[in-house]
Formats: sequence, C-alpha cells, structure tokens
Amino acid sequence: MKNFTLYNPTKLLFGKSQIQNLGEEISSRGHKKILLIAGGGSIKKNDVYNQVTQSLNNSNIECKEIWGVQPNPILSKVNEIIALAKEYRPDALLAVGGGSTIDTTKAVSAGVYLDNVWDAYEDWSLVKKALPFFTVLTISATGSEMNMGSVVTNEDEKKKWALVNKNLFPQVSIIDPSIQSSLPWNQTVNGAIDALMHTLEYYFLGKDEDITLSIDEGIVKSIIKSTNILQKEENYEARASLCLAATLALNGTSGMMMEKGWSLHRIEHGLSAIYPKIAHGAGLGILFPAWCEHVYKNNEPIFLRWAKEVYNTQNIIDAIQKMKNQFSKWGAPTSLKQLDVKEEDLVLIADNIFMNPEFKGIINFTKEDVLTILKNAY
Amino acid sequence: MKNFTLYNPTKLLFGKSQIQNLGEEISSRGHKKILLIAGGGSIKKNDVYNQVTQSLNNSNIECKEIWGVQPNPILSKVNEIIALAKEYRPDALLAVGGGSTIDTTKAVSAGVYLDNVWDAYEDWSLVKKALPFFTVLTISATGSEMNMGSVVTNEDEKKKWALVNKNLFPQVSIIDPSIQSSLPWNQTVNGAIDALMHTLEYYFLGKDEDITLSIDEGIVKSIIKSTNILQKEENYEARASLCLAATLALNGTSGMMMEKGWSLHRIEHGLSAIYPKIAHGAGLGILFPAWCEHVYKNNEPIFLRWAKEVYNTQNIIDAIQKMKNQFSKWGAPTSLKQLDVKEEDLVLIADNIFMNPEFKGIINFTKEDVLTILKNAY
Repeated sequence: MKNFTLYNPTKLLFGKSQIQNLGEEISSRGHKKILLIAGGGSIKKNDVYNQVTQSLNNSNIECKEIWGVQPNPILSKVNEIIALAKEYRPDALLAVGGGSTIDTTKAVSAGVYLDNVWDAYEDWSLVKKALPFFTVLTISATGSEMNMGSVVTNEDEKKKWALVNKNLFPQVSIIDPSIQSSLPWNQTVNGAIDALMHTLEYYFLGKDEDITLSIDEGIVKSIIKSTNILQKEENYEARASLCLAATLALNGTSGMMMEKGWSLHRIEHGLSAIYPKIAHGAGLGILFPAWCEHVYKNNEPIFLRWAKEVYNTQNIIDAIQKMKNQFSKWGAPTSLKQLDVKEEDLVLIADNIFMNPEFKGIINFTKEDVLTILKNAY
Repeated sequence: MKNFTLYNPTKLLFGKSQIQNLGEEISSRGHKKILLIAGGGSIKKNDVYNQVTQSLNNSNIECKEIWGVQPNPILSKVNEIIALAKEYRPDALLAVGGGSTIDTTKAVSAGVYLDNVWDAYEDWSLVKKALPFFTVLTISATGSEMNMGSVVTNEDEKKKWALVNKNLFPQVSIIDPSIQSSLPWNQTVNGAIDALMHTLEYYFLGKDEDITLSIDEGIVKSIIKSTNILQKEENYEARASLCLAATLALNGTSGMMMEKGWSLHRIEHGLSAIYPKIAHGAGLGILFPAWCEHVYKNNEPIFLRWAKEVYNTQNIIDAIQKMKNQFSKWGAPTSLKQLDVKEEDLVLIADNIFMNPEFKGIINFTKEDVLTILKNAY
C-alpha cells in the first residue's frame, strides 16, 4: 500500500445530448477561437460533427478544423498540427474522437510551447504549461478523456511511448454513450478489453489495498456484464455502464494506493510500434493470458482473489482460461499469428520494448521473459 | 439512469506523514495568512496539531487559531468564527478535525461573503464565492473532506440542514490514516456506519446503473471487512482502506448516474436536530433496518441484488437482519430507546423532518411513513 495523491480536475459531462453544452463550457472559460482536431470522418456519419459545430456556433466560437488523426497516432501528424496551431493561435483545442485523437490533442497542447514535442515523451518534466483543451469522446477505451496521459508513436524511431504530465488533464470532457451505438462490434470489444486491462494492470500489482481491489473487481465484473449484453443487442444502459467503466479504469480510481509498474501495456506498445495496424485492445487481449501465466506466481494471493471474485474458481489457470474464452466469445483475436505477425519479428518486438528505460512490473522483466510471453501468445 | 456531471477538483493527499506537505500546498497557492479552525483539543493529544503547526511554520504561514467546534456543529459557533474571520481577514481557512470542523469551515468560507450565512442553507444558490480552504482530517466518516456539502444545525430553529454548492470543495485535503489509530472504537464504528449509509442511500435509489452499483458493492464489502479487522486489532492497511472508502462514499464516486432523493439521512437529521447529542453514525445505524423494511418493496430488484452480493442470501429481510447483527456486533446501539429518546418525542422528530421542503426518496414519504420508521426503530 502506497501513499498517493487523488487529483483529477477534469469536468466530465455524461449522458444523452450533453454535446449541446460544449459551446457554453468553452466560452464560459473565456475561449473564443479553437482548433478542432479529428480523425478520419466517422463523426460526420454519426451526427457528432453536426452537434459539435451547432453548439460552437451557438456560443459564437471561431473554429478551424484539422482532420486525419489515425489509430495508433503518429508523431508526424502531431507535428503537422502543432505547426498549424502555432500559425492559427487558438485559445484552446478541441478533440472530437477516440483515444488517438485525444492523445494527439494532448501532444499538441504541450507541443505548442516546446521546440520538439518528442523530447517531452523522453522527459515528462519538460511540459511546464499546455494549451487548455476539451474533448468529445466517440469511443470509450483508453480513458484519455479524463486523465493526464498521452501515447504517441514516433514512427521514425519506432517508439510507441507515453507522456504523463499534470498539465495534460482535459478541462471538460463529454461522453454521450448513445453516439457509440453505431460502433462496429470489434471496436466495442477492443475498448472493453482495453478498459479491463487498465484495471487489471493495477489490480495485479495489488497487495493489501482492499478498497481499491474491491472497486476494481466491481469495474471488471461490470465491463464483462455490459459487453455480454451489448453482444446480444444494443442497449443504452449497458452502453453507458461500459463507457463510464472505461473512464474510471484510468482516471485515478482504479489505481489508488497501488504500486507502479505496468508491464502488459509496455509489451503491447512494443508490438504495435512494430505492427502499427494492430488495434491496442486487440493486442492486449492476445497478450493477457500469456502474460498472466508468466507472472501470476509472483503475486498468487491477488491472482487467486481475482479468480474467486470474477470467475468463482479457486484455480488461477482456470480463471485465465475463462477470460480467454470470454474474449474469444466476443470475437476478439486470440493469437499473434492470427494477426499476421511474423514469428521472426518477436525478437524485434522484444528489442523494441527494451528501448524504453526502466521496465519493472510484477517481476523484473528480462528480454527472455518478454520473448516467452510473446511466443506463448503466438 | 440519469445524465450527470463528474467533477471534483479537490486534491487529496493520502498516507503516512502527508501532513508535512500542508504548508507547501497552502503557500504555493499564494496564501500567507490563515485561520485554523479546530474542535475540542484531541489534535493536541495525537500529535496532529504539532505536525500541522510545524508544516505551517516551515512555509512561513501566519496562523490564528479558533477552537471549540463540537460534534453536530451549530450555527452560533459558525457565526462566531465568521465574525472573527471578518476581523482577521485570512487568505484562506484550515480545518483540522472531523466532519463537524470541516462543515463549520465550509460555512465560514461562504459566510464571510454573506450577511447571514443561514440564508445559504435555506437557498443554496446564494453562495457566489467562498474563501479557499484546506483540511486535515482526523476522523473518516462524513466524506466532507472531498465534497461540496456542509451540514450545520441552526439550534434556535432546530433545523439540521445541508448546504451544497460548487464553491465549497476543499482546495487540498490531507488524510493520514495512522493518526486515526487512537480513535475510540465507537467513533470508528460511527464513521464506518456513516460511510456505509452514504453509499447505500445512493445504491438503493439505483435501477440499471450497473457500473455504479458494482462499485458501491465493492465499497460496502470493503468497509465491512476493514471494520471487522479493526475490531480485532489496529492495522494500518485496514484503517487506510476504511478511510479511503469513507471519502469515496461521498465524493461523487458512489452516486454516479443515480437518482436524487436521500431519505434515511433526512430522517436522521430530524432525530439529531431534536437530540443533538446523538452521533450521526449511531443514529443512522439504528434507523437503517427500520427504513429498509419500510421501503424495500418499492425497489425490490436492487435490495435483492444487495442481499445477494453483500450477504449471499436471496432474502432481503435476512440481509437486513444480518446488517443489523453486524452493527450490533460492532457495539453500535440498535434502538432509539437505548439512546434515551423519549417515545413522545417521535412526533416532534417527524414534524421537524417536514420543516425542510421537498422530501422524496424511494417512496413519497408522508409523516405517517416517517413515524412508522421511527416507531420500528424505537
């Protein structure tokens, strides 16, 4: 159990039609001119773009748009937007999209005050200030809408790294779960797995933090329940539960008092640095069982607690298999081979992971550990 | 399931020796002169006062002290402190104590800008600004350290009423669980019951908010587990879990997406308005079983869910009895009679409750409903 700080200044507006409050939230903070950052254009199909621009217009906010953020967002796009922002000089930024768009926006918000934004991914303390920014979330997964983290891939150096800095909390984030009803099923599943893994990365580092472990069990069970319901039929209540769970999985709630040392995400980031087309949630889902099997002996009491609470079994291996079956039932891929990863690239992936200094989780990972996990996930 | 806003700007520092950071947190926000508000003097016995003044001295903060806030804090004391604050003109306030001290401090922080602070308890919208304030918590119970609510008794009018306003969040709150190890057992129990009831007031208003219901079950189970451990022996991890649970029970986490309409607290406030010596947690614990029995039929699915998840029974009455036994095992009083409440005063208490307009919870309460609950708790 660790001393910790619970602090999250982001204001989250959650529920149907909340986007209509966007303009007022921005203008009441004195911002008149914003840069809207978006992805490939799905927001024009699901009416989000209309709702956003209408709300901005109602509050007389000047707005320029930049499109084209892609999944697993890349540094070259970040730099393009920073250049635009330096020229346009907005009062604030607005991300309309998923985690990739929000993470890109965070990079831009810090980057307008830096000579080279990538430096901040190598040294988090370089971010001394950032442009205020707002978000409208279109897919619940990464939790970026209510935290201070950003993950971007430096594609030249093949580094998919995180930046965490207290200046990078959104001012206001809006989640209207109803707009996620049109998501393709595999994206809902990837989001659910991502949120599960955020919660469990903390959970499996646990020891005696009973209140956090209990809450995390609640989050995990609720995500599984909601996703099962959504697989059968679209349902607003299940969708909203899943959306909120994804936010709580990484807004500080799930990790209170917990030790540091995420390792599963670190391995996945190596994987998608080399294979950028692999969705983060899909990668995590494949790696999770192999990762569990490799590390559980170093924290058996907590793995056993998870097995009992979530899967009602006294057998950890049985619980891991049950979660794997669950992912499989949702249609998630279950092996790296299935995603056309080449076996000879596993070493490359392991090498990539160790480019990032300091890698300590449930165990002190060696390259051999990572290779074993990758091979077992193959 | 309701639309809602999740927003809590309080920075919580949690863990051993965190009080040493107090001075820096205050001075880094530009405050140089503060008014320290405290209770009867227990903080001089448990070393908290020493730690606080040392940290303030290290940051060269000028400090005046006012003592004597009592449990179930009263308006006359609030007014005394407001008069002092208007004369001394501090930059900020510092509450060192439990919920009563913090609620008094909130009243003062709003009251220095009002002609008559009680007006704000009758009309919450009157609070347009408030003096910044900080808290060092010495007993975990009310959750006031991380929310925007204050409950004060107007002793002349016998009104124990709440004020909720977004200007009343603490800037920074500090919880060092180790300082609560010297609390008398009955205070630990009252705090645990208060936190349980905060969580369950929301929970029993639930319907289809699965993520919140799941988290609330985690909070409830963890409070029971930690309190059971503490009854056997003092243990830092259990104490810390209980402290954090009490904060989460009323910092926004436990009530996400939930309908409004707390009723159990409303009844207890009527009770302790007439009998100010009854500790809030003790009153809640006595009223809870009678309240459950009277209202559960109006939300059976959720009461059944609670019975299953927390007490592993399919029988609601059985679960209510189990919780009652639990309170009794902790040594909490189980009847109003036991606390020397006069039977003829039950009508007076019911009348008092209905002085406060708008009273709607799981059912539309009539005075008859309240009297039935009071009689069954007698």
